[in-house]
Amino acid sequence: MAGNSILLAAVSILSVCQQSYFALHVGKARSKYKVTPPAVTGSLEFERIFRAQQNCVEFYPIFLITLWMAGWYFNQVFATCLGLVYIYARHLFFWGYSEAAKKSLQKVTKEIILLALLTVVSALGIANNFLDEYLDLKVAKKLKSSF
Amino acid sequence: MAGNSILLAAVSILSVCQQSYFALHVGKARSKYKVTPPAVTGSLEFERIFRAQQNCVEFYPIFLITLWMAGWYFNQVFATCLGLVYIYARHLFFWGYSEAAKKSLQKVTKEIILLALLTVVSALGIANNFLDEYLDLKVAKKLKSSF
Amino acid sequence: MAGNSILLAAVSILSVCQQSYFALHVGKARSKYKVTPPAVTGSLEFERIFRAQQNCVEFYPIFLITLWMAGWYFNQVFATCLGLVYIYARHLFFWGYSEAAKKSLQKVTKEIILLALLTVVSALGIANNFLDEYLDLKVAKKLKSSF
Repeated sequence: MAGNSILLAAVSILSVCQQSYFALHVGKARSKYKVTPPAVTGSLEFERIFRAQQNCVEFYPIFLITLWMAGWYFNQVFATCLGLVYIYARHLFFWGYSEAAKKSLQKVTKEIILLALLTVVSALGIANNFLDEYLDLKVAKKLKSSF
Repeated sequence: MAGNSILLAAVSILSVCQQSYFALHVGKARSKYKVTPPAVTGSLEFERIFRAQQNCVEFYPIFLITLWMAGWYFNQVFATCLGLVYIYARHLFFWGYSEAAKKSLQKVTKEIILLALLTVVSALGIANNFLDEYLDLKVAKKLKSSF
Repeated sequence: MAGNSILLAAVSILSVCQQSYFALHVGKARSKYKVTPPAVTGSLEFERIFRAQQNCVEFYPIFLITLWMAGWYFNQVFATCLGLVYIYARHLFFWGYSEAAKKSLQKVTKEIILLALLTVVSALGIANNFLDEYLDLKVAKKLKSSF
């Protein structure tokens, strides 16, 4: 499985870099807007950047799970493409949100559609594998008993 | 491994749907209680829903890791059952918390017990596999040298 | 893959225990400093502990992904060692942060260096596997056509 998960692994590492980049950006914003830890409020600009990153953090495990499940049980190349589009959408979201919080509220819909798509194909792939595994057994038994 | 992780995959996708549902509910609560981003305070009702979701988010990677490790190294069906119970417990927790914050403080203990159980069986499974792998080698060597 | 991921699984379960411990510590701090949920502010001591845990939560999926990718595509023992060092660094970070918030700002650099190292070796391993898989095919074809 390690062999045929190579594209998923590459997308995951790319997304890890993006998440780290967002986290470092929050760190920079802390010193720029003079928000000393543990505070997370005090400057509206900082709060925007912080909230944008928090939104990315919240959705990150959801993204990873749907990416890998879609890749394993549906189609690796399809999951990889959706994953790349998601990473790009997150990039736009993060910069949109840190500039103007209101504007980005609409933008998160893109990410949700992408995640929903990944979830649907994962569910389809899992259901198909599930039926295959259990129907195969029955089909094999039927064939055995009929001959 | 993709074949014998099918139940774990199904539980993971189910939990992804639940997490997304919680996140969407927070989004709805934002507009209902008029908490404009990036703010996360201002309305006690919103804060409860937000904190309930944040608690779920915090524990989500822990749940996923223990679910998969218990499924891979201990028993897939057992891990799946515990996973389903955990998802149901989270469902009760989320609605309990968003209604009354105090009441739910007791409720999170259920989730912790479930996660602790998954962790213990994972650790047992891993320890068993570890000993097997390394003892087998030695046993094989001993058998070779004795004949 | 379940067989040769045993060390990664063990490190993951260890990190799960650590994360749970941090979460429980926040719960204890809540009652100690009388911060009733859903509030997360009010006591500077509580805020420090809470923020320290939040920082660990944010980086947790990043840690898991880089650990497993480095283990699968680069070297399991190397990834395991870095993982253990990371867990120890997180331990120091958490206690440093909850004591004095300023001091720990420098400390998170260690974790970032460790994660960067895991990311780099993961990327190297993935790139190597990727080239291998696709070059092998070509090399095999070339060999076939030359004889």
